Amino acid sequence: MRKRIAIAGATGAVGRLVRQMLEQREFPYETITFLASKRSAGKIIQFKGEDHTIKLLEPEAFNEIDLCIGSTPDEVAAEFVPWAVERETVVVDESGFHRMLDHVPLVVPEVNPEAIANHKGIIASPNCSTTQMVVAMKPIYDVSKIKRVVVSTYQATSGAGVAGQEDLVGGTRNALENKIWDYQAFAHPIAFNVIPQIGSSKHEGYTSEEMKMVWETQKIFGDESIQVCPTCVRVPVSNCHSESILVETERPISAEEARQLFEASPGITVVDDLAAGVYPMPHTSDDQDDVFIGRIRKDISCENGLTFWCVSDNLRKGAATNAVQIAELLVSGRYASCGTSS
Amino acid sequence: MRKRIAIAGATGAVGRLVRQMLEQREFPYETITFLASKRSAGKIIQFKGEDHTIKLLEPEAFNEIDLCIGSTPDEVAAEFVPWAVERETVVVDESGFHRMLDHVPLVVPEVNPEAIANHKGIIASPNCSTTQMVVAMKPIYDVSKIKRVVVSTYQATSGAGVAGQEDLVGGTRNALENKIWDYQAFAHPIAFNVIPQIGSSKHEGYTSEEMKMVWETQKIFGDESIQVCPTCVRVPVSNCHSESILVETERPISAEEARQLFEASPGITVVDDLAAGVYPMPHTSDDQDDVFIGRIRKDISCENGLTFWCVSDNLRKGAATNAVQIAELLVSGRYASCGTSS
Repeated sequence: MRKRIAIAGATGAVGRLVRQMLEQREFPYETITFLASKRSAGKIIQFKGEDHTIKLLEPEAFNEIDLCIGSTPDEVAAEFVPWAVERETVVVDESGFHRMLDHVPLVVPEVNPEAIANHKGIIASPNCSTTQMVVAMKPIYDVSKIKRVVVSTYQATSGAGVAGQEDLVGGTRNALENKIWDYQAFAHPIAFNVIPQIGSSKHEGYTSEEMKMVWETQKIFGDESIQVCPTCVRVPVSNCHSESILVETERPISAEEARQLFEASPGITVVDDLAAGVYPMPHTSDDQDDVFIGRIRKDISCENGLTFWCVSDNLRKGAATNAVQIAELLVSGRYASCGTSS
Repeated sequence: MRKRIAIAGATGAVGRLVRQMLEQREFPYETITFLASKRSAGKIIQFKGEDHTIKLLEPEAFNEIDLCIGSTPDEVAAEFVPWAVERETVVVDESGFHRMLDHVPLVVPEVNPEAIANHKGIIASPNCSTTQMVVAMKPIYDVSKIKRVVVSTYQATSGAGVAGQEDLVGGTRNALENKIWDYQAFAHPIAFNVIPQIGSSKHEGYTSEEMKMVWETQKIFGDESIQVCPTCVRVPVSNCHSESILVETERPISAEEARQLFEASPGITVVDDLAAGVYPMPHTSDDQDDVFIGRIRKDISCENGLTFWCVSDNLRKGAATNAVQIAELLVSGRYASCGTSS
C-alpha cells in the first residue's frame, strides 16, 4: 500500500492543526501534498522543517494521492470529494456533507473503528459536539446499553471558525468600552452573552447542530434505539466545548463504576474531585487530544441515570485529531487498507 | 395595619435594586428605614428624591418596624432576623439561611402565594436559579404533575456579588492582554472559561447551589415527588441566568400547548421563533422582571418530556423583585397581614 497523502483545506484553522498532528504523531507517508483554494494556492508553508508550496484544490490534484484528509466547509467537500474518489483516493472528510450517507462510515476510533472496513472511498469524521460525547458514552455503553441521553452544550467560538474567534475577541474588547462590534459569525453578540442556537432551524424545534448530535450518535453506535435530547448553546469561550451529559442506562451504574470505566478508557482523562474544586474546564483542556470527564455522579432524578461534565478541544479531538486517528487506522491496515476499498 | 418598612443590607447590589423596585412599583409605606453594616451606616442615600441617612443594622433598629426586606449574606441574616422577629417585625429574607426551615414559607408569588399565610415572622425568597425555574414550571405543573426536571444552568457572575462582576471585567481585560488577574470571587479564571461548580460540595457529588434547586423546588411546590437533576455552571456573562430545562410530566404536553400555557402566565414572556433567530438571551433579558422562555419543543428522547430555554435577571426576579413581590402580597393582606402573624 502506497502512502501518498494530501491535506485539502490545509490553510484553515483545522487544516493547520491537521498538519501539526501529522508532524507530532509522526504519521507515515511517502509524499505529502497541501491543497487549498485559489486564495492560498502558491503560498509556501513549512512542514517538518521543509518548505512546501500549496497546490490548487482541483480534480487533477488527486491524480497521485492515495489518502486525503479534508478539512473544508461542507460546500467545498461536496465538490472536491468526488474528484478524489474518482481517482481512487480515500478521503477522510471532516465536513458534515457526507456523514449521514449510508455508504459512508462515520468513525470515532475509540468507538467504532471497525466501521472503516466498509468504506467506499469516503470516511466521515463526526461533528465536534458529537465526537466528545460518544467517546464519553462508549465505556458506559459497553457494559449497559444507553437508552437515552440528555445533553446541554457550552460551545466555544472556535467552532464557528476564525471569524468566530475574531468576533469573540473584537466583540469583547468593544463591549468593555461600550462600543458596538459588527459580528460576522454570529447573529447576536457573543461577548458576555450566551446564544441558544447553533446552526439553522432543522427538525421539530431543534437546530441542525442538535440534530447532528442525535443522528450521528445513533449512526456511530449503529443503534437507533439511543434517544438523544440535545440543547446546543454558544458561550463566550474561545476554544473547547463543554457538555453537561445525562445518560440513562439499561441497568443502574454507580458513579464509582462509571469512574472506573472512564479511567480505563483510551482517549479519556478523568478530572474529578469536586471538594477540591477539580473538574475539566475549557481553560485547562485546550491543546490536548483527550476527552476530559468530571462531576461524575448518579442522576438523583432517575434510578438508571448517570450524569457528568465533559470537556474537549473541539478543534483537536473534535476535528483534526479524530481525522488523523482515522487516517492512522486506515494506513495501519487493521480494518481496511488505503486503496483497497473498491 | 401599619406599614413602617425597612431594608436590611440596603447598600449591597441587591439592596440597591430593592430600593429601585420599591420606588418604581410605588410600594405603599408610612416610614422607610435603610439599614446596613458599620461600613455604610451614617452615609446618605436618595430615595424618591429625598435624602435618607443609613442606620446601623442592630437589634434596636427594629423597634418600630413592621416589615423588613433583608438583602444580606446568610451569616448576616442569621444574626439580624431574630432581632427583628423578637420585635414583631415580619422579615422577607433573601438569604439562604432560613429557606429550608419548616416554619418558614419559601415563596414565589407566581407559584405559591398562599404559603405566606402560615408565616411565623419570616418568609424566605428562594435562590435565584430556583426562582426562574419554578416560575417556568408552574403553568405546566398546573395541568399535569411534573415528575422530573433535568436542568443545566448558565449562571452570570452577578450571582457572585460585586466581586464576581469585578472578576469578570478585570479578568477579561487582563486575559485580552495575556496578563494574570487575581480572582477574588472565583476559584478559577472566569474570563473566556466556564466553571462547573457553584457553591460547595454538598450531597452525593452535587454542589450546594444544585441541591438548592432540588430541595427548594420541592418545598415551593409542596411536592417531594418532583425529582430534579441539576448541573450548575458559571459562565462569563455579567448578568442574567440562563437554564436549559427538561421536564417530564404525568401526561404528554405538546410544544404548542406549553407555549399557550406559558403565554397565559403572569411573570412569563415567551420569546420563541427559532427560524427567525429569536429566543431569550442574557443580553436581552437584563433589567427586566419577567422570566423569558423560548426554544420550546418536545423532548425527542421521551414521550412525556418537554424542553425549553429560560432566562431571567437573577438580581431582579432572582432576588430583589421576588422579595418586593412577597412584601406586596403581605401588605395587600390577601393571604396574611403584616404584624398579624403571631
